[in-house]
Amino acid sequence: MDVWEAIRRKRAVRSFKKEPLPDDVVRRILDAGRRAQSAKNSQPWDFIAIRERETLQALATCGQWMGHVAGAALCVAIVTPSPEGNERYPWNMFDAGQAAAYMQLAALEMGVGSCPGTVYDEEKARELLGVPAEKSLRLVLSFGYPAESTPPPAVVKRGRRPFEEVVHWERW
Amino acid sequence: MDVWEAIRRKRAVRSFKKEPLPDDVVRRILDAGRRAQSAKNSQPWDFIAIRERETLQALATCGQWMGHVAGAALCVAIVTPSPEGNERYPWNMFDAGQAAAYMQLAALEMGVGSCPGTVYDEEKARELLGVPAEKSLRLVLSFGYPAESTPPPAVVKRGRRPFEEVVHWERW
Repeated sequence: MDVWEAIRRKRAVRSFKKEPLPDDVVRRILDAGRRAQSAKNSQPWDFIAIRERETLQALATCGQWMGHVAGAALCVAIVTPSPEGNERYPWNMFDAGQAAAYMQLAALEMGVGSCPGTVYDEEKARELLGVPAEKSLRLVLSFGYPAESTPPPAVVKRGRRPFEEVVHWERW
Repeated sequence: MDVWEAIRRKRAVRSFKKEPLPDDVVRRILDAGRRAQSAKNSQPWDFIAIRERETLQALATCGQWMGHVAGAALCVAIVTPSPEGNERYPWNMFDAGQAAAYMQLAALEMGVGSCPGTVYDEEKARELLGVPAEKSLRLVLSFGYPAESTPPPAVVKRGRRPFEEVVHWERW
């Protein structure tokens, strides 16, 4: 699948088949994130790859909109440096966003759907996964083969601001 | 070019040919960013697409490592909501990171190199581009056909932390 097709087809998948992901698929998703660029090549991320159902179900309760994690074949927790006294934190998040995009596009090409989730109860998630105090865990990505009930559209057309509104030429 | 190949080949290009980018290439790069996902579909970004040499040269002086902007065929300034009193700012940056990744991968597929740049002198950049006070401009992306002197490697192998260091299985 070429890049442009992947970008056009990409949409959130929140409902997954029970089928597990092959190990090589899991590794490629994680490796895509690892390869992402980052400010001064700081690579300010660690990924926790979770496939145990009990952990997925517990993690799913750490955010109001994280229900999709419970049924995922794989959840990748994106761990960054803590925001406390860290002026680079917004850049860490920018870089984490790039890594997330790489993982989700690489997954899509292999027929794997995905959805990001926001951790609201960070302490609970941190304890569950053993994340050290100097690290932050605010973001997870669910992955899995899309459930039959959610066939992928050829192109996602709706829901984005129009090109002419988003793009300014030469000046604001 | 498939997604995985693009991710493997991707590396920063800071030196560009003088050749301009065709309009359809410019539009596809911008459209790729516009299509990126974002928290609650907030799309917290505006893009300023700059091709005028004088503006590019002035913008290149707004950050210590932004020299590549002066010679770019296109610079995309990523404008987000201001961080002032904005608790969503880290998420805005995460989303901006996703949009940046989409733009750079879409560009790569079309043979267009790119490099991010950090704006240090935000006031100067804001004034140059007419960015409103309630918006923030900390990030730009340079685009252009790579200069002959920087042939793209088949695969970028160096410079990333090893897979086993970045990835934790099930728990930290």
